[in-house]
This record gives sequence, C-alpha cells and structure tokens, in this order.
Amino acid sequence: MGFKDDLLSQDSFLGGQLAVHQPKAGYRAGVDPVFLAASVRAHPGETVLELGCGAGVASLCLGSRVAGLTLTGIELQHEYAALARRNSVENGVPFEVVEGDIAALPAELRQRSFDHVIANPPYFLRENGVSATDEGRETALGERTPLSVWVDVAMRRLVQRGQLTMIQRAERLPELMSALDARAGNIEVLPLAPREGRKARLVLLRAIKSGRGPFALLPPLTLHEGAFHDGDRESYTPEVKAVLRDGAALRWPEA
Amino acid sequence: MGFKDDLLSQDSFLGGQLAVHQPKAGYRAGVDPVFLAASVRAHPGETVLELGCGAGVASLCLGSRVAGLTLTGIELQHEYAALARRNSVENGVPFEVVEGDIAALPAELRQRSFDHVIANPPYFLRENGVSATDEGRETALGERTPLSVWVDVAMRRLVQRGQLTMIQRAERLPELMSALDARAGNIEVLPLAPREGRKARLVLLRAIKSGRGPFALLPPLTLHEGAFHDGDRESYTPEVKAVLRDGAALRWPEA
Repeated sequence: MGFKDDLLSQDSFLGGQLAVHQPKAGYRAGVDPVFLAASVRAHPGETVLELGCGAGVASLCLGSRVAGLTLTGIELQHEYAALARRNSVENGVPFEVVEGDIAALPAELRQRSFDHVIANPPYFLRENGVSATDEGRETALGERTPLSVWVDVAMRRLVQRGQLTMIQRAERLPELMSALDARAGNIEVLPLAPREGRKARLVLLRAIKSGRGPFALLPPLTLHEGAFHDGDRESYTPEVKAVLRDGAALRWPEA
Repeated sequence: MGFKDDLLSQDSFLGGQLAVHQPKAGYRAGVDPVFLAASVRAHPGETVLELGCGAGVASLCLGSRVAGLTLTGIELQHEYAALARRNSVENGVPFEVVEGDIAALPAELRQRSFDHVIANPPYFLRENGVSATDEGRETALGERTPLSVWVDVAMRRLVQRGQLTMIQRAERLPELMSALDARAGNIEVLPLAPREGRKARLVLLRAIKSGRGPFALLPPLTLHEGAFHDGDRESYTPEVKAVLRDGAALRWPEA
C-alpha cells in the first residue's frame, strides 16, 4: 500500500538531526516545512495539529526542537501518511498521523482542539496548469481544497487564543488574508525574500484565534547572501543556516 | 462657509512647486499623499479620480508631475472641497472637485469612468469621536465608510484595465485585500518602512481592474537613513528625497 523502498530517498534535515524518507518523485519537502516548524511558538506540554502533513517533515522538525509536544497530523494520501508514521518511528519523534481529508475532517479530530495548528498548504491552483504527471505530487502541489478551507479547519480546531502558523507563496497572501478575516487577530506576515531587495516568494504567517492585536507586515527575512547565486556554494545567511542546519527557532522581528 | 484665513497655514510641497492651504488644526496632509501621487502610472491625456481628496494635495502633486491629466476629486466636507478648489486655482493645476459622499456617489460621477482612481482613506476609525491615537478602541468601533466601500467605488468607476493606487496603514492591509478580492489583479503592495529592518507603518497598493497578474509583495521602501532619528537633521533616503523635494515619480521595484 505504501511506497516501495526503491522509490524512496532518505534525506537529512536540521543538520542530520532528522533522516526522513520521501518519495524520489512526487512531492518532496525542501526548506519550507523547516521554516514553518522553526516559526511555531510552541512550549512543552502543548498540542499541535498539522494539516496536510505529507511525509511529516514540519512536525518532526518541530518535535526535534521543542520537547514534550503532542504532535498530530492529518494527511489525505495513504502513502504519505504511512511514510510520516515510519519517519516518526525511525526518528524517535512521536507523531500521530490520521488519514483523512481536511475538507471532511474525521470525527476523532473534530472532537479535539489544539494549542497550535500548522500548515504548508499546496502552493499552486490546479486549474492554473501545474501539469504534474505524478498523482501524489499533483495532490500535494495542485490544490483540491481551497485555502479558505485550510484556514477554516485550523480556526475550528484551535483553542481560544490558540496559534496558527502557515507558510504559503506570497502571491496567495490575499487569499490567506481573506480567509482569516475576523476570527483571527495579531496576524504577523514575515515575507521570505530570496535575496536582499528582491520581492518575497514565500510568506510565513502567524495569527492568534480571537486575537485582538493589529496586523503587522514585518521586514522581510532574506534567505541568501549576495545579489546572485554563486555556483554551488551555499549562500544562506547565518540566521537561516542556524534554522536549517542547527534546528534553531526562527527569530521573528518584533510585531 | 470655508475656513477663515487665520485658521489656515500655507505649506510647501515638492520642494516649493506647490503651495497648499491647509487648516492649522484638523486633517493635514504630510508626506503620504505625496507618495501616493508619485506612485500613479498616469500618462498625459488620462483621467484620474481621487476619492476623499481633502485639500487636494495628492491630485495637485500628480498634476504637477504629469502634464495633461484630467483631475477630478470628491470630498465629503464642504470646507475641504472649497480649499481644494482654491489650491487648484492658486497653483495653476486644474482640478475639478465634487462635493459629496463616496458612499452615495453623486450622479455626475456615477455616469463617468476613469483611467485611474487614487485614494488616501482615513487611517483611523472615527465613529463616536474616538481619538485617533486610541488604537485599542479602534477595532471595537464601526467605521463610517468602511475601506471596502472605498475599494468598491474605485472598482466601479475604473475603466477596464484601469489602475487603482492607494496608501493606507499597514495594519489595515488585510481589510484592503479582502475588499479587492476577485475584481482586481496585478496587485502590488509596497511596504513603507520608517527605517531599515523596521516593520512597515504604511503600504502603497496598486491594482488593475480585471487584471489577471499575480499578487506581489514587494521589498520595502525605507524612508529614513540610519537606525535612529538624528535630532532635527532630515534623514530621508536620496530616493525618497527625490520624490518629496523634486517631485520625482516613486520607482517601484519590479513586480
């Protein structure tokens, strides 16, 4: 039922703290779920729900950084859910993975609420012509479930004053904002710019359920040093390296 | 009917190109309408409608930079409308000012459409005489003319592919985004950060009616040099100085 081993690669995250199996073809986690996990203000003893957890990279990164969390994920695709469970066991980071559709949340999740909800929803709209040949990749990349549903499910599952943390393409910030509307406050948007002075490709977003604080557009986090890509040399800024290689929390500017 | 002269000051804009009468107390234009005007991609022969034009600073700045525009404004308050007409005549920049409420647009404007709509809507909610400095109460109180109405009127009055340019507090970007929704595309947001690395206080926003291009979150424009305010020394960056003192167009980063 799951991926055969010869279709999988094992990839290192957080400078080797995690070794995660992923399909060689299909949706593969890069740095985005690491940034997501590094942005969650979770404390030991808290509960976290990841929507659309894929192979589990974001939750496992978060569990590696913050001990004593209760981590739960929901994943639509059986093969990825199975991989996430395997990655949890092999890395010794407890992570409960529920198979199901966030648009029709299984009863076992509908009865629970969480201190944190995190998500790295698909970046591309299906009808906008992402022609993925791989079905798993298409489901993970091409959207079936509108962003507004992701946000809606997150808001319903959060405790009062619970925290939502998401990463998404900057182009879709308007949709995210519209979806959040009045149910969340203290919204902070941290643009991720590939280089100094470039427009943001991604945004990280944090919000508090029923929060009353103002929206804040934070100064961008620059990922790479220098104006251009310099061959094969890794060019991440020291702060970004600390997140990606040492598993550090991502320090957000003051809102 | 208008302001008495001893209640007015005469203030210089664009390095002396404009001398504008404003009330000494009440709403006074600062640099914001200048940034707004400097961001409009208007060409000679085009028509421009300013919503809530106040004493006319934005439209007069725009008319000073781009010759041959047909400038029209609507202003709710009689005294400001009268001032805007006076400022138009005294500065030799033709500017037609209609007195009326944008929430109940006069028929003479409802029958016309424009290549550009520009607006610098009120930053703070005003009902029940709430003090503009009281940000806490702001969220709790209803606004007299919601931002969504400003955007709605703008969209209705724009020609197809017409351009909306607005300036607003960064905190209210979510409202602006929600209001724009599907009727506009090619939305560009240019954050204005007081200093390098600080969060944006203001955002400039451009959008195209029925545009289909993606949303772009641009790298912030930094207004002041240095990390702190240095006494009375003017600290604007050279690019910002060129806009404020020489009447230059504000160069937006590539979307």
